[in-house]
Amino acid sequence: MSSKTSADVIIGGKVYTLSGYESEAYLQKVALYLNNKMNELEVLEDYRRLSADMRATLLELNVADDYFKVKEQAEKLEEDLDARNKEIYDLKHELVSAQLKLETLENSLEESEKENKELLLTKTKLEAELEDLLLAEPVKKT
Amino acid sequence: MSSKTSADVIIGGKVYTLSGYESEAYLQKVALYLNNKMNELEVLEDYRRLSADMRATLLELNVADDYFKVKEQAEKLEEDLDARNKEIYDLKHELVSAQLKLETLENSLEESEKENKELLLTKTKLEAELEDLLLAEPVKKT
Repeated sequence: MSSKTSADVIIGGKVYTLSGYESEAYLQKVALYLNNKMNELEVLEDYRRLSADMRATLLELNVADDYFKVKEQAEKLEEDLDARNKEIYDLKHELVSAQLKLETLENSLEESEKENKELLLTKTKLEAELEDLLLAEPVKKT
Repeated sequence: MSSKTSADVIIGGKVYTLSGYESEAYLQKVALYLNNKMNELEVLEDYRRLSADMRATLLELNVADDYFKVKEQAEKLEEDLDARNKEIYDLKHELVSAQLKLETLENSLEESEKENKELLLTKTKLEAELEDLLLAEPVKKT
């Protein structure tokens, strides 16, 4: 667990001393983000005419909107991730099936080639026997 | 594009009329979220002692913190998704390789089995010829 940090940040021109378990860099990032949001709103004439209270609420709504937008994005990503995980599961299953089929085929091929070799030997032997017989004792025509 | 909506929401006990392209349900959800955040903070004695301005800033910081936390989560999910996409790409590649190998093996097996069949026929023919010869003309021992 990280230790408690304390940092002075400027938000809306005022200095605040924040303390918590977040890094100072993080606290400054959050303050910068809020200042940028304020600056975005400040350029709107309507905003400048609002009371401090209304301005604060509008800022809060804007930040909350950012939060919900990125939350929705995270939910969409989570769904995509679930779909990808399912796809990976299916692909791995298919791959295992293919590998089993490959093994079976490899065994069958080995078996068949062994049988072929034996048959070839037998054939050669039979042909030799036949040749010997035919040479030794020509068949008489009847 | 959705049409502009207008909705009255209550934030921190005050009524605000919000207008924008978001649905009223969304605007109410955002308001509810802000009210819940405020309620979470209200229970803290330190918070209640702060000026309205300070309270608003603390609320903004809290909402911005939620935003950054979920943003980080979304970034992590995006990385995970990239990794899964890479994994899917690799698995599909492996699957195609396995399928090509399967096809090759299937062809080889077919070829080998055809050869086997032919060899068996030849063997049977040779054995018959040999038997005929031996029956017709018994080999004389020398």
